Amino acid sequence: MTLESIRKVAIVGGTHGNELTGVALVKKFERFPELIRRESLEVLALLANPRAIAENRRYIDRDLNRCFAVHELSDPGLTGYEEKRAKEIKAILHPTHGSGVDFIIDLHSTTASMGMTIIPSNEDAFNLQLAAYLQQQDPSAQICLGDRQDSSRLRSLSRLGCTVEVGPVAQGVLDARIVERTEVIVHKILDYLDARNRGRSLAGSSSVTVYQTLKAIDFPRDPSGEIDAMVHERLKDYEPLNFGDPLFISFSGETFFYREQATVHPVFVNEAAYREKRIAMIFSERKKIVL
Amino acid sequence: MTLESIRKVAIVGGTHGNELTGVALVKKFERFPELIRRESLEVLALLANPRAIAENRRYIDRDLNRCFAVHELSDPGLTGYEEKRAKEIKAILHPTHGSGVDFIIDLHSTTASMGMTIIPSNEDAFNLQLAAYLQQQDPSAQICLGDRQDSSRLRSLSRLGCTVEVGPVAQGVLDARIVERTEVIVHKILDYLDARNRGRSLAGSSSVTVYQTLKAIDFPRDPSGEIDAMVHERLKDYEPLNFGDPLFISFSGETFFYREQATVHPVFVNEAAYREKRIAMIFSERKKIVL
Repeated sequence: MTLESIRKVAIVGGTHGNELTGVALVKKFERFPELIRRESLEVLALLANPRAIAENRRYIDRDLNRCFAVHELSDPGLTGYEEKRAKEIKAILHPTHGSGVDFIIDLHSTTASMGMTIIPSNEDAFNLQLAAYLQQQDPSAQICLGDRQDSSRLRSLSRLGCTVEVGPVAQGVLDARIVERTEVIVHKILDYLDARNRGRSLAGSSSVTVYQTLKAIDFPRDPSGEIDAMVHERLKDYEPLNFGDPLFISFSGETFFYREQATVHPVFVNEAAYREKRIAMIFSERKKIVL
Repeated sequence: MTLESIRKVAIVGGTHGNELTGVALVKKFERFPELIRRESLEVLALLANPRAIAENRRYIDRDLNRCFAVHELSDPGLTGYEEKRAKEIKAILHPTHGSGVDFIIDLHSTTASMGMTIIPSNEDAFNLQLAAYLQQQDPSAQICLGDRQDSSRLRSLSRLGCTVEVGPVAQGVLDARIVERTEVIVHKILDYLDARNRGRSLAGSSSVTVYQTLKAIDFPRDPSGEIDAMVHERLKDYEPLNFGDPLFISFSGETFFYREQATVHPVFVNEAAYREKRIAMIFSERKKIVL
């Protein structure tokens, strides 16, 4: 566990403009700032992609949550809407003069039936301790680790923080239950950070089970490149996929089976926005990390 | 029950380009036409909005399923993509020379948790008899009647037919269970039409319970016109809404209650595409029709 204090926190919503849960919560926090006030913290609420939000689209020119790699943020040749907005967001969260945010909470939703998923910014012990604490508070929550090499996400702007990813909910829809569940987690995070700053330790775990993402899996395609199958109805987010289990079913009724020896756990199954990225699901490996 | 035969049937998918269930089924039927072959029927499968399908959007210029009013189809001044496409579809389904289709099955999906809903083209006894038969076959299916004055829907191109509306499924997602359930209903419809043409009567009912739509309900809005509340989590599609029941919950935590005396049954609750139409849900009246 790192010892420095966490003084500035950003709560970000609408990184994807049609994921309304985060948009609604950030607007709520802007209107009722007392909700996110904590004694030892300065908390900023930020709508990341205003134009995409206004148009109820994931993005205008390019997925904003793939625009934060360091070399892209410093490339003046990148002038698409999201490319410029990523630089603005970096300047807001980490201004040249003054202190930057220590912790980022980026609020997302998914059409996958993933329930509450915490995606720590990285495997920093602090991030994992917090994730373990959140799982204690919401036992059905899962913890998912992204690709270690990938620094293109908004959450990468700070070493500490996480993405909160909740589903299933359709793009462009506010589901009151999902909004409430997300808000509860935001408050748990702020309470944890505040308690820690004030020397109080909230309950922790000695180990945590996480899902480490391994690789993206595309849909089967016909010779012309068109998607030719659906995810098989027996396949579920976070459930083990073993050799011989059904994976896809084609429109001609042919079942595609999983044929690798290693058991994996699919996540982001049928995330609508991943179709254009040629991703039907992401395989992950379940593993235990000692804290 | 009308006595004339039904000889030509159109199965339409992709009237809304991001409702993939119908798109996938029509593509499947185009590839395996034997699936929709019936002895006494000529069955045509049609993708209604190819450009919107290619772009995974509901529509390009204007909602295609609001473009079929007779005065619009004959208005040469309407030249948007969907306005022109509506005229093309009319020419395909009802050519100037040759016979038109007698029955239209228009396949849709919704982000609302409505399950299987049959929306007859109108209250023609034939349409209602068929809907009652489908409900016997799939007892959780519901029957919903649209506005009698509204002839803007694709299904309005024929007196006989129905929309098949299944949910919940996010836009841009294929859910194998929902695709299968929709396909089963298509086959039941074709079997029914074929049996009737051949003088065999499939089981029928003497009455049917339907949900007659009454009016669209907008979200509560703040003085600037922005949506200020979510549908209350206790409100459910097809369940009775009585005086005093919760209707919306605002972001400041205020509950809005239903304050009319008449019990209504909301449908299309949280349909994503209706947000821009200023519709949070549609109230319907449950009623029994003697056949």
